[in-house]
Parts: sequence; structure tokens; C-alpha cells
Amino acid sequence: MEKCTFRTIEVKGDALVMLDQTLLPLEEKYIEAYTVEDVYDCIKRLAVRGATAIGVAGGYGMWLAAKEVLQGLSDDKPLSPEELYVVSIALDERAAYLNSSRPTAVNLSYAIGRVMDEYRRLEESLSSDKEGIARQYVTASDIINTIFDAADRIRIEDDECCMSKGEYGLTLLKPGMRILTHCNAGGLATTGFGGAFAPIYMGQERGYGFKVYCDETRPLLQGARLSSWELSKMGVDTTVICDNMAATLMSQGMIDCVIVGCDRMAANGDGANKIGTLGLAVLAKEYGIPFYMNVPTSTLDMNTKTGADIVIEQRAPEEVTELWYEKRMVPEGVKVFNPAFDVTDHSLITAVITEKGVLYPPYEESIRAVMEGDR
Amino acid sequence: MEKCTFRTIEVKGDALVMLDQTLLPLEEKYIEAYTVEDVYDCIKRLAVRGATAIGVAGGYGMWLAAKEVLQGLSDDKPLSPEELYVVSIALDERAAYLNSSRPTAVNLSYAIGRVMDEYRRLEESLSSDKEGIARQYVTASDIINTIFDAADRIRIEDDECCMSKGEYGLTLLKPGMRILTHCNAGGLATTGFGGAFAPIYMGQERGYGFKVYCDETRPLLQGARLSSWELSKMGVDTTVICDNMAATLMSQGMIDCVIVGCDRMAANGDGANKIGTLGLAVLAKEYGIPFYMNVPTSTLDMNTKTGADIVIEQRAPEEVTELWYEKRMVPEGVKVFNPAFDVTDHSLITAVITEKGVLYPPYEESIRAVMEGDR
Repeated sequence: MEKCTFRTIEVKGDALVMLDQTLLPLEEKYIEAYTVEDVYDCIKRLAVRGATAIGVAGGYGMWLAAKEVLQGLSDDKPLSPEELYVVSIALDERAAYLNSSRPTAVNLSYAIGRVMDEYRRLEESLSSDKEGIARQYVTASDIINTIFDAADRIRIEDDECCMSKGEYGLTLLKPGMRILTHCNAGGLATTGFGGAFAPIYMGQERGYGFKVYCDETRPLLQGARLSSWELSKMGVDTTVICDNMAATLMSQGMIDCVIVGCDRMAANGDGANKIGTLGLAVLAKEYGIPFYMNVPTSTLDMNTKTGADIVIEQRAPEEVTELWYEKRMVPEGVKVFNPAFDVTDHSLITAVITEKGVLYPPYEESIRAVMEGDR
Repeated sequence: MEKCTFRTIEVKGDALVMLDQTLLPLEEKYIEAYTVEDVYDCIKRLAVRGATAIGVAGGYGMWLAAKEVLQGLSDDKPLSPEELYVVSIALDERAAYLNSSRPTAVNLSYAIGRVMDEYRRLEESLSSDKEGIARQYVTASDIINTIFDAADRIRIEDDECCMSKGEYGLTLLKPGMRILTHCNAGGLATTGFGGAFAPIYMGQERGYGFKVYCDETRPLLQGARLSSWELSKMGVDTTVICDNMAATLMSQGMIDCVIVGCDRMAANGDGANKIGTLGLAVLAKEYGIPFYMNVPTSTLDMNTKTGADIVIEQRAPEEVTELWYEKRMVPEGVKVFNPAFDVTDHSLITAVITEKGVLYPPYEESIRAVMEGDR
């Protein structure tokens, strides 16, 4: 399986090694986490970011937690019921603690929950005769391996999702295309091959010679700091622009398509993504340029009918007024409007790239079809 | 005549007092210039900026130059031919020097040229019998007053142009309107009442209660630093947004019109203005919002047929990669595209506000008419 030339999260021996994204683009430094506290810190201070990457970190974080909890117990000796009881309580405590590092990250609670479910299944198998065979005992190794395997499976699924979105996305692209992106939903936001950039990296490997323009993405500059870092690191011809320069590029025929990620897509295809996405979609329509959203099916939210139902978070004014929180650039007393996301109307989206195929309008139908095929 | 609550350029006693715009928005500090060197420095380091403001500073700069050159001579004693010869050479030298402070600023050379023309006319009147009466002599006072009056007239014309654009512009606005602006072509760019913001300030005085949103205007943040400063200083309800937030405001019905300045308008109505203007115009069209350009007739360039003939300056990448030139935020080795301006197609412009009236499409005709009326 293809790999990025950087690794957001990787197990190396006893450690969980994570790229410290707060230091990008100036420094590529990897943090070695040996305890659940280390992982908690990394997630909390955004050293690890991006929905699926946070989930994977959470899963492996529970592996580190299990090793801590079971420390001192012999690997292969059966645990006594009393020991198992203490282990269960300790694991639950650590799961709750790790979950609190970013309470609103759905993927984090999903991953921790899934890992703990596997642990419970192991525990229950001691008394269960569901499959006719009850285990006689469990060892520390059994528990650690079960949790590790569950975490690993989450990572592998992320990898597979990226690969699949990459292959489907690449069918929309042609060699030499000039692609505009916004924010970062790329490889840094996942542990797999490129996230929303998977089609670009796959094309790159196959000699497509893309040219990618990254919106810097005010106020937090994820495009300037993160997307341009990973794209250039992967050998892609990369140019940074200010967000307000996209129109002039498009009007001069310098952009062939737009590819962005998506934070939540409603059942009708309206897609919430980083603030600035909607403006790009309107410009793309004006200049007849295809606009693609790269959306894993886990982000398709059938419970949200339209974009109007998506509540947009207003963030701190200081993100706009004080870049890097160092120097003020807006007068005191002036108001600031700082929404984190905007909603792109489905009518502006040319196609939606998922790991299960490319969806086209009418989205109400194509999204329902892909979700129902999922059952 | 209405005045702004701040003065970009003002004569006070012997000094030319200028607002140091490099310190905005953190500090409102005024510089007292007593010599032509002081004015040169202010223009060169952008303490004074904006086309007409630079022109006015240049005019008054020559007044300071004349006082320097004529220092030590009695105010009322006729100058000898030898003295006058020396004065002429010294003034020419200082004019060339001041002009070199910003060689590409058309208004600077225009203002200095006009002031010097007045001086020549005075000089020539010694021997002239054009009007039947030759002057017998000139004094130091004659020269200083002539140059001062010429400089003052340039400022007054700027004031009148602002007032007139304000009145015409206000006919397009209604009380309570929510107005979006980009960059700064406001009062800080002129010495008059508000520049492109004149309609807003006039409405403000008449109780219109506008709400103005300022695009921060990357990369140099003129909207965040300058426009929001002067609008709030004038008591206008002011909110700063990142450039990429305009679409979400418009899509939610939160903007009633867009008003921007213009650096050069071609004969067909295509308008070059700060990068990001074109994108706003496209968004305004998508959401059915009027888009107004505020353009003094001196900015209508009949020698440029269409926007395609306007060459756009590419500026230093560091403006994008290193905000305030302090901290890098883009990886080394990544390319940057940094055009200073974009061109808004005339088809996207609802109306053009000039000091001679509001122009409507077809612009080829309305611009020609206003320029021919000008002869």
C-alpha cells in the first residue's frame, strides 16, 4: 500500500510516534508517546489534528493505557477475577480521560468506544457460550493484543478509505491539471494515503504532473502551513495564494478543478466545510470549473436534511485580530465576524468523491443509494 | 464643509502635519514636517498613502521647500534677477528630489508639476505682457504664497471631489443598509471627506445608521488595519471579516451592497482594484447584491480600452509568506502567487460613482459621455 513520505501516527516498538503539527511548516518533529497522558496532551494541544487522525490516536492511546494498567502482571498468566475487575475499572477511567481531550471530536469517542467494545467482548467471552466455546481465562497479553488489534483495524480502515477515495477521485482528473484546494483535509488529517489529497498523490505517483494551488485559508492558515507543506513534501508542484486571489486565477483560465474536503454533508448534498469553501464554489460556477468535495461516507449525515440545519460555530475574534496571537492588527472596539465553516449549496457541487464511488446530482438520491447500500 | 474626525494632512502654522499611517491601528500619531526632507521620508515609508493624499503632501512639500530656499531673504524686498535664478534652480532640484520619493505615484508628479507651473507663471509674469501688465518684481512672499495657494487648491479640489462623490453615492444607499467594503480607499487615502467612504460618512451624519463589514484584505490587511480604524473613528458600526467570509454573509442575506474603490478603470468599465475585488463582484452577482465602484474621473483611463490591457503588478512573496515580515508561515521552497490587483469585468459592476454623477451600463457610452463633458 502506498505511504506518504511523512507519517502522522505510527507505532514504533513500545511508542506511538506522532508528527507534531503545531510546529509545521517550520519544523518536522515527531513526538514519542509512551503513556495515555502523552496522547491526551498531543490531541489537546492539536499536535494531532484531523477527524480520522484523532480517532486513530485515540485507539492506540487505549493500547498505551492497557499496557500501563497491566504493567507488573505476567504476560501469559491467567488473570484472576479480582485482577480483571480492577483492570476493567482502570481502563474505563482512562477511556473517559482520553475522551475528554477533545470532547466534540466524534471520531475520538467512536474509536475509543470501538476499542473498549472489543475489550468487553473478550471479557464476556469468559462466561459466554454464544459460539459454544467459553474461554477459560485471559492473560495480560490477550487484553493488550485485543486492544492493539482493534486500534490497528481503525487505522487500516482509514488507509483503505483513503486509497479508495483516491482511485475514485482520480477518475475525475487528467494529467497536467491545475487544482485549487482550501484548508487541509489532506494526509495530515488522516493516517492514510492523503485524505482528500489521495487522488492528487496517486496521480503524482503515476506521472500526472499536477499543479496545485493552496488557499492560505484565513484565519488559521491551514492551507499555507499544512497543505502546502505536505503537498510539496510529496513532490507536488505547489503554490500558495491568499484566499482572495482565487477569482483572478480562475478568470485567467489557470484552474482546471477545485478539490476540497467536507466536515459534514447533509442528506441533500449541502456540504459544510472550512469557511471560504462556499466562495470558491460560487467562483467555480461562474467560470465553469468543476468543484469536487471529497467526503468519506462517515461524513454523510442522513439525520441532517439540508445545510440550513447545520449550526455553524463562531470562533474567537482573536483568531482574526491577532494573527498567531502575537500582534494585534484590528483596532480595539471593532467587531469581528469569525465563523469556522460555511455551507456550500448542493447546486454548486459538481461531484462528491466517497470511498464507495463518485456521487453525482441529484444528491438526495445518490447519497441515499450509497448509504442504503451500506446496510 | 464636513471634515473627518481625523486629518491625514493638515497645515498648522509653519508645519505640515501628517497622520503616520504605518502605526495604525494601534496608535494615532501625527508627524510635524518642517522640511521637504521630512515630507520625502513620510511618502517614502508610506506614513502617507493613497493616490490623492500623496499628491496633496507633494504640493505642500514644495511649499516647505520654497520656505527653505527663500530663508534669509526679506519677505517683502524684490528679488534680484540673480537671486531669482538661484531660487529657480533650487526649487527644481527639490521638486525632482521629492518626486523620487515614490516614482510611480502619478498624483505626486502631477501635484508637484502643477505647483511648479504656478511658480513659472509667476516668474514669467515679470517679463510677460500677455495680459498687458508685466509685474515689476516678485518678493519671497509672492513665491511662497503662490506655491502655497497652488498646493491648497489641489487639496480643496480633492475635498470637493470627495463631497461630490459622497452626494452622488448616497443616492444609491438607503438607511440601515449593510455595506461590504474591501481594502482602503477611504478618508485615509485622501485629505477630503472620506474618499470612497464619502457616501457612508455623509449617510452617517444624516442618521442612516449603516452597518459596514470590512474585508481584512490579505496580504497587507488594509481593511483590518485602516478601513476599520477610520470607519469606527467616524462612529460607523464596523465589523471586520476575513476575505473568505464574504460569501457566507451574502448567502445569508446579511449584505445589501458592496462599495469598493478603483485604481484604474478602462474605457469599457473594467476596473482594476486591490486583489480580491473581482471575487466579491462575482459573489455579489450570484446573490443579487448591487456592486458599486467609487471612481474619480481622474481614474478613468480612456487610453486603456479594456481590463485586458491593464498590466497587474506581482508583488514580493514575503507579503504572503511572512506576515508583518516577522514570522514565516509558508514552508521554504513553496511557490507564491501574489498579484497586487485584479480586474473586475464591467459586466459585474452595477454602477460607477464619480464626482460628476453616477454612471450606469453600457459603460463605454457613459464613461465617454462624462469624459467628453469634461473637455
